[in-house]
Amino acid sequence: MPLPSDAFVLTVLCPDTVGIVAAIAGYLHDSGYCVEESSQFSTADTSRFFMRTVFSSQSASHDEAAFAQGFSEIAGRFSMDWQLHDTNVRPRVLIMVSRLDHCLNDLLYRYRTGALAMDIPAIVSNHAEMGELAEWHEVPFFHIPVTPDNRTQAETQLLEIAGEADVDAVVLARYMQILSDETCNKLAGRVINIHHSFLPGFKGARPYAQAFERGVKLIGATAHYVTRDLDEGPIIEQAVERVDHVHGPEDLEAVGRDVECLTLARALKFHLEHRVFIDGAKTVVLR
Amino acid sequence: MPLPSDAFVLTVLCPDTVGIVAAIAGYLHDSGYCVEESSQFSTADTSRFFMRTVFSSQSASHDEAAFAQGFSEIAGRFSMDWQLHDTNVRPRVLIMVSRLDHCLNDLLYRYRTGALAMDIPAIVSNHAEMGELAEWHEVPFFHIPVTPDNRTQAETQLLEIAGEADVDAVVLARYMQILSDETCNKLAGRVINIHHSFLPGFKGARPYAQAFERGVKLIGATAHYVTRDLDEGPIIEQAVERVDHVHGPEDLEAVGRDVECLTLARALKFHLEHRVFIDGAKTVVLR
Amino acid sequence: MPLPSDAFVLTVLCPDTVGIVAAIAGYLHDSGYCVEESSQFSTADTSRFFMRTVFSSQSASHDEAAFAQGFSEIAGRFSMDWQLHDTNVRPRVLIMVSRLDHCLNDLLYRYRTGALAMDIPAIVSNHAEMGELAEWHEVPFFHIPVTPDNRTQAETQLLEIAGEADVDAVVLARYMQILSDETCNKLAGRVINIHHSFLPGFKGARPYAQAFERGVKLIGATAHYVTRDLDEGPIIEQAVERVDHVHGPEDLEAVGRDVECLTLARALKFHLEHRVFIDGAKTVVLR
Amino acid sequence: MPLPSDAFVLTVLCPDTVGIVAAIAGYLHDSGYCVEESSQFSTADTSRFFMRTVFSSQSASHDEAAFAQGFSEIAGRFSMDWQLHDTNVRPRVLIMVSRLDHCLNDLLYRYRTGALAMDIPAIVSNHAEMGELAEWHEVPFFHIPVTPDNRTQAETQLLEIAGEADVDAVVLARYMQILSDETCNKLAGRVINIHHSFLPGFKGARPYAQAFERGVKLIGATAHYVTRDLDEGPIIEQAVERVDHVHGPEDLEAVGRDVECLTLARALKFHLEHRVFIDGAKTVVLR
Repeated sequence: MPLPSDAFVLTVLCPDTVGIVAAIAGYLHDSGYCVEESSQFSTADTSRFFMRTVFSSQSASHDEAAFAQGFSEIAGRFSMDWQLHDTNVRPRVLIMVSRLDHCLNDLLYRYRTGALAMDIPAIVSNHAEMGELAEWHEVPFFHIPVTPDNRTQAETQLLEIAGEADVDAVVLARYMQILSDETCNKLAGRVINIHHSFLPGFKGARPYAQAFERGVKLIGATAHYVTRDLDEGPIIEQAVERVDHVHGPEDLEAVGRDVECLTLARALKFHLEHRVFIDGAKTVVLR
Repeated sequence: MPLPSDAFVLTVLCPDTVGIVAAIAGYLHDSGYCVEESSQFSTADTSRFFMRTVFSSQSASHDEAAFAQGFSEIAGRFSMDWQLHDTNVRPRVLIMVSRLDHCLNDLLYRYRTGALAMDIPAIVSNHAEMGELAEWHEVPFFHIPVTPDNRTQAETQLLEIAGEADVDAVVLARYMQILSDETCNKLAGRVINIHHSFLPGFKGARPYAQAFERGVKLIGATAHYVTRDLDEGPIIEQAVERVDHVHGPEDLEAVGRDVECLTLARALKFHLEHRVFIDGAKTVVLR
Repeated sequence: MPLPSDAFVLTVLCPDTVGIVAAIAGYLHDSGYCVEESSQFSTADTSRFFMRTVFSSQSASHDEAAFAQGFSEIAGRFSMDWQLHDTNVRPRVLIMVSRLDHCLNDLLYRYRTGALAMDIPAIVSNHAEMGELAEWHEVPFFHIPVTPDNRTQAETQLLEIAGEADVDAVVLARYMQILSDETCNKLAGRVINIHHSFLPGFKGARPYAQAFERGVKLIGATAHYVTRDLDEGPIIEQAVERVDHVHGPEDLEAVGRDVECLTLARALKFHLEHRVFIDGAKTVVLR
Repeated sequence: MPLPSDAFVLTVLCPDTVGIVAAIAGYLHDSGYCVEESSQFSTADTSRFFMRTVFSSQSASHDEAAFAQGFSEIAGRFSMDWQLHDTNVRPRVLIMVSRLDHCLNDLLYRYRTGALAMDIPAIVSNHAEMGELAEWHEVPFFHIPVTPDNRTQAETQLLEIAGEADVDAVVLARYMQILSDETCNKLAGRVINIHHSFLPGFKGARPYAQAFERGVKLIGATAHYVTRDLDEGPIIEQAVERVDHVHGPEDLEAVGRDVECLTLARALKFHLEHRVFIDGAKTVVLR
C-alpha cells in the first residue's frame, strides 16, 4: 500500500519485557502521530524485542529534534537501540560488481523505474566493462582494479567513496573479491552480498559446478549481510528454482541468474524499507 | 514459537483511526498482561482496522468477566467488533465429506498428531464409506444421505449436529453437495470449503477436466469461506503445482489431491488460530 | 547441455501409429547423423504424435536438399507435418511494446548477453518512449501510433516490417493493442503474448485490479500464442507468486512484473528452441 | 496418462554412441510392439546413455524369454545394462520407520488408494508403536529393536525379511538408525531415504535445529538412495518450503513434515515407475 507523503519509519531493538508497545504507541499517539503500519517480534530463546512502526505526522508538524528528545526517555527506560527514518529521504546505495552484470542490470532497471526507491551515488568495479552501462543510467562509475598487491589501497579507495557518498548500503552484485575483515567491520550491517547458492550448501567458489557434481534437483541463491566469516553472514532472503539432470553447469548458471536477481532485489528492498534487523547470526525481517 | 500455557488471543475489527493500538496496548499493560505477539493491518481503500494480539496473564490472574468489563469501554469508544479466545480451549471442528477422502485423511492425521490443535466432535457424510476411517480415529460419524427430496431435512439434521457440538468451524473436505442459502447464512464465517482449482479459474464442477481442456501449466486449490455465491466466498489460502501436457485428467487429480490437502490444512490452521478476518469479499490473514 | 556446433532440430507432428520412432531413428542413423536429444509425446485422447529430435552431422556432411528428399518418403508414409531447423541460424524475433517496458528490458538483456539466442530485427511500439532503449541496444525501432482510425493501416505496416524481417516470432511484450483477426491469422502460431494474470482467471483488461478485488493469495502470468479469441490462445507457460492482503493494486503490479518477465522469457526460449507444438487449444512443450 | 493394460517398461543404460535409438525402436517395431512413451538422455561429460521406453504388446503376444533372446543381440552390441518390467506386476516395497510416522502414514494412504501402485509386504520398525497403524492397513509388521549390541543381528533379520519378500525397494520413512556398509551394499540401488533437510545443507542429525540456528529462509527435504556415505547418496528428489524468523525449531519440523511426505512420495513413485537411473553420485530421472 502506498504510504502518506509525510511518513517515518521507527525501528526499535531492545530486551523483551512488558509495556514496550504500550509505551511506543502511547508516545506516538500523544505526540499527534498516526500509526500506518506496525509489526513486532520477540525471540523465544534470547528474549530480544524487534519493532518496526511506520507513522505519519498528519496534523502534527514533525520536528526531528523534538521527537528524539521526547522518545529518548522511553528509549532509555527500555534500553532501546532505535532509529528514525524519513521516507522522503531516498537511501543511498553503492553497487559493486565484477564481470557478470545480470544483478547490476536488474538493480539499475528497478532504480530507473522507481521499483527500488534509492539513489545510486556510485558503481564500483574491479573491471572496466561496466562503465558503459553505468553511463547510460547516468550513475558515476569507479574502476578500481584489485591485485594481490593493491588490495589495501583499493579498499581504502572504496571506503572513501562510500564515506563521501554517505551510503546506507553497499551491494555486492556478483562482486568476486573478498573484502578484508577491517572493511567488513567498518561497513558492518550495511553490506549485502548475493551468493549464488542455497546456503549453507555450496559455500565458496564455483557453487554451480558443485551443484552439478552433487546432482541437486533445486538450485538457489542467498542474499546475506557480509561478515568476516565468508558466506556465513546473516541471511536476508533465499529462493530456489527447479533443475534436473539435463542442466549442465552452464544451464545451472543461466537458471541461477534469474534467481540471483530476484533474491538480491527482494533483500535490498527489505533493507531499504528498514525491515531487516540483525539478530546475531540471523535476521528478523518484519513484513 | 510455542505460546505460554495461559495465553489468550484478542481479535479486533473496527474503523481505522488514531490511537487504537495505544489504547489496546495500554489497557493490556495496565491490567498486568504481557503481549506475546501482535499484528495489525488497515485497509487503504475502506479504512478498516484489523488486529490480532496474543497475550499471557503471567503474574496477573485472568478473569474473563473483568477483562470484558474493562475492555468494553475501549471497544465502545472505537466501535470495535472484538473477541477473546482462550488458547487452552481447543476449537471444535465438524468435518463434512463425500466420497473422496484425501482431505479427510490428511485432517485426521493432523488431528491425531496434534499438528492441528482441535477437537472433532463429528464427521458428517452423505455416503457411508467414511465410517470406518472415522471409527479408527474414534470420531463420531453421521451418515446423512442427501437426495433431491430430503435436502432441507438433511441440512436441518446437519445444523442440529453442529449446534449441539457448538462448532467453531465446519470444514467441507471435498463435500460435493451445495449448502442452501439458509444454512450458509446460519453458519456464516464458519464454513471453510476446499475448491479443487485456482479460483477464479475453473469454478463449478469438474475443474480438473476444465484445466485439462484449457491446457494450463499449473493447477491449484483454493480454501475459502462458503457464502451463498458458489465459489465466490472470501479466499483464505491458495496453492499451485506445476503440470504439463503429459498429465491427463486423472494425473491432474492426483497432483491436485496433494495441493488440496496442504491448502485446506493451512487455511484451517489460520482459522483455528484466529488469524483470519473477513473483509467483505476478501480476507485479511494476520501472521 | 551445450549442443555441437553442427546441430539440427527436427520437429514432427503426425497421427500416432506404430513405427514412427523406428523410421525416424533408422533414417537418421542410416544417413550418418548422431542423435543428441530426442523427446516425444502422443496424446491419449486425440492420438496425435509429437517429436523433437536434435541431431548432429558429425562425420556426415549435411545437405539440406538431400535430407529433405530422403526424409520426404517417411514424412509421406506417416502424414507428417515436419520442419528442420539449423541451430546455427538464429531465429528472428520482432518485439512489440506499449508503455510498460519491464518485459522489453528483460528480453533485451537476455538478447545482449546471449541468454536468448535470437536476432531482433525490429522493435515496434505504438508509443515513442521506447526508442531510446532500443537505440542503446542497437535495435531498429519503429514507432507506429495506433488510433481507432488508422488501425488497419498500422497493422499493414506491422505486417510489412514482419514480412521484410522474415520473423520467426512476434512477441507482444505488454503491447496493449488488440490485433485484428486478419493479422492473427497471418501470423498464426508465431505471436506470443504475455498476459498479466494466471489465465483463465482475470481475462481482459486490468487483471491486477481484478485480482485485488477478488483477494487472491497468488498472482500469476501467462505466456500464450495469440489467436482471434482474446486471452484464449494455447498456453505455453505460466508462473505465480505469493501475495497477501497487504498488497494494494500497485504492489500486485510490482510483484507481477517479475513474474511476467520470467514467464515470457521462458516461453520464448521454448519457442526459439522449437520445443512448442500447438495441439488445438493447448500446447505440447517437449523438454 | 493411463497405460494400456499390457504395457512393459524397458530401461537401458550403456555407453553413448550412434544408432542405439534406431536399434531399439527398430527391434520393438519389428517384434510387433507399440511404443507408448520413450525418453532418453546422454551425459555430456561421461558419455553415458539412458533410455526408458514403455511399450505395449497390442496384437503381439508377449513372451518374456523370446523378448530377452531377441533383445540380447542388441544389448550385447551396445554393452547395455537393461531390464524389462511388466507393469502388471506391482513392485514390492518394504517400509522402515522409527517413532515419527508422518511419512509412513502418507505412504500408507497412497498405498490404500492406489496412488502409489505397490505392494507392501512388510513394515519394519525399531519401535513397537507403529504396529497399530500397520495392522489397520493389513500390512505385516515386524518390530526389530536395535541396540548397540544387536545391530548385526537386527540387520540380518531385516535382510531376511527383505529377501523373503523379494522387495524392489526399501524405504527409510524417517528410520533413524544407520545401516551398516554391508547392508547398504547388499541392497544397493534399492534403499531410498528421506533426509529432513535440503542436502547438502544440514547433513547429519537434527537438521531442523541446525536450520533454526543458521536462520535460513527456506527449509527442505531430500529423497536419495542410501550408500555407505551417510547423506551423500544420489539425490532423487528435493523440495523446499518458505519459513521465516517466527518459526521456532518445532515450527520448522511441522512445516518440514509436509515437505518430507511429498518429496518421499514423489521419489518413490519415480522409482516404482522405473524412471530413476543411478549415474555415479547423481541420478537421471526420466519423465
